[in-house]
Amino acid sequence: MSDLDPPLSTAAMLAIGDEILSGRTKDKNIGHLADILTAAGIDLKEVRIVSDEPERIAAALNDLRTGYTYVFTSGGIGPTHDDVTADAVGLAFGLPVDEHPEAVQRLSEHYAARDLPFTPARRRMTRTPEGATLIDNPVSVAPGFRIGNVFVMAGVPAVFRAMVDAVLPTLPAGRLMLSRAIPCAHGEGVIGDPLAAIQKRYPGVAIGSYPKFGEGKPSTELVLRSRDEVALDAAADEVRAMVAALDQAG
Amino acid sequence: MSDLDPPLSTAAMLAIGDEILSGRTKDKNIGHLADILTAAGIDLKEVRIVSDEPERIAAALNDLRTGYTYVFTSGGIGPTHDDVTADAVGLAFGLPVDEHPEAVQRLSEHYAARDLPFTPARRRMTRTPEGATLIDNPVSVAPGFRIGNVFVMAGVPAVFRAMVDAVLPTLPAGRLMLSRAIPCAHGEGVIGDPLAAIQKRYPGVAIGSYPKFGEGKPSTELVLRSRDEVALDAAADEVRAMVAALDQAG
Repeated sequence: MSDLDPPLSTAAMLAIGDEILSGRTKDKNIGHLADILTAAGIDLKEVRIVSDEPERIAAALNDLRTGYTYVFTSGGIGPTHDDVTADAVGLAFGLPVDEHPEAVQRLSEHYAARDLPFTPARRRMTRTPEGATLIDNPVSVAPGFRIGNVFVMAGVPAVFRAMVDAVLPTLPAGRLMLSRAIPCAHGEGVIGDPLAAIQKRYPGVAIGSYPKFGEGKPSTELVLRSRDEVALDAAADEVRAMVAALDQAG
Repeated sequence: MSDLDPPLSTAAMLAIGDEILSGRTKDKNIGHLADILTAAGIDLKEVRIVSDEPERIAAALNDLRTGYTYVFTSGGIGPTHDDVTADAVGLAFGLPVDEHPEAVQRLSEHYAARDLPFTPARRRMTRTPEGATLIDNPVSVAPGFRIGNVFVMAGVPAVFRAMVDAVLPTLPAGRLMLSRAIPCAHGEGVIGDPLAAIQKRYPGVAIGSYPKFGEGKPSTELVLRSRDEVALDAAADEVRAMVAALDQAG
């Protein structure tokens, strides 16, 4: 890479909720965020799922926010007693948590327009750590928030996605990770050794091998990833030649 | 709970693989393990997903194995160079990693019976930290392994499931977590305050509220969970009465 490359941004995700850990809800947000960040050239390096306990959330968040450029959280920002994310984020940052005036305004207008009371439970959704900025929620109004390098978003997939869409354009895009996928009609036991030899010659290219077990015969998909297109294509050529040689031999 | 209750076992899962973090593969093992552990009365308390880097895997594993009764890992035990889990587990435990004689026997017989060479790549799948015991793999032979309180299993979902099935009967079953699901035609903003009051009266019952946004009107599913059936049913009665009162008022 040249000196002109933008610095590489890394990210972690923290999914919050007992319902994921009990199996009751199957998470749909991790895969979505992974896709979106990869497309934006930001490396998702770690994901954690923790229960609705403020101390556990805060401890995980402090690990992640000091280790990566950005942290994205999902879940725990609704109006009920088990929504403890705002308090946990305040705990992690050592900041007081209070009603955010702009959030109060948005929600009070929203409920007034619908002749619904602005209950204490609904007011819970306006609470953020001091100094947070809001993340828009075009689906159900109650906002997420950003504090430091942490983006706090809803767990409901439609709302999570809308909030990710709101946040992504505000981040500097990284240099895109490029990839080449090469189908291979041979199992990992056959390709393992020659593939390791190619990997050794191209340290800047991550070569992944993903086994498939279908139609009786093992096969693999080989995926090469790099931000350096020249090295990537050279390595891909070698992998294709290896597969062709195995095809002939077989 | 009485003094006769079995001690509560906790668990964590460590999913390993760049392909999950890039979005290329959507994890299917977390939700499955969550379901199985919940049914077995073992509390899944944390999940982490990390990349194929031995140091990161080892650091996460050391956090988890000292914090929970059991740790289940998925991924990174195949024959290719990007399968680094066995080495990472050895690193975490400070143990040498070498070919496990029983694994060598199983795989050498398997390949001999198929007239396939037992290549160095295939031999990689026999490597375990010293002192590990094998986990059977009825799908594709190459075993997982257990070392201490850590169960190391494959990432391919069919193999992961078969290995979980092999491991679970070897663990002491915990006292089952019981649950009651109560549908509620009111949104979280309406139920938040009365629900919080009920939660306060039943500290031994975890009351979760899961919003739904369908058919124009918000509704929720309320799920109460506890190992104490008497407290659970008492709390569930109160929640049902609260919902009925809201139905009448609405």
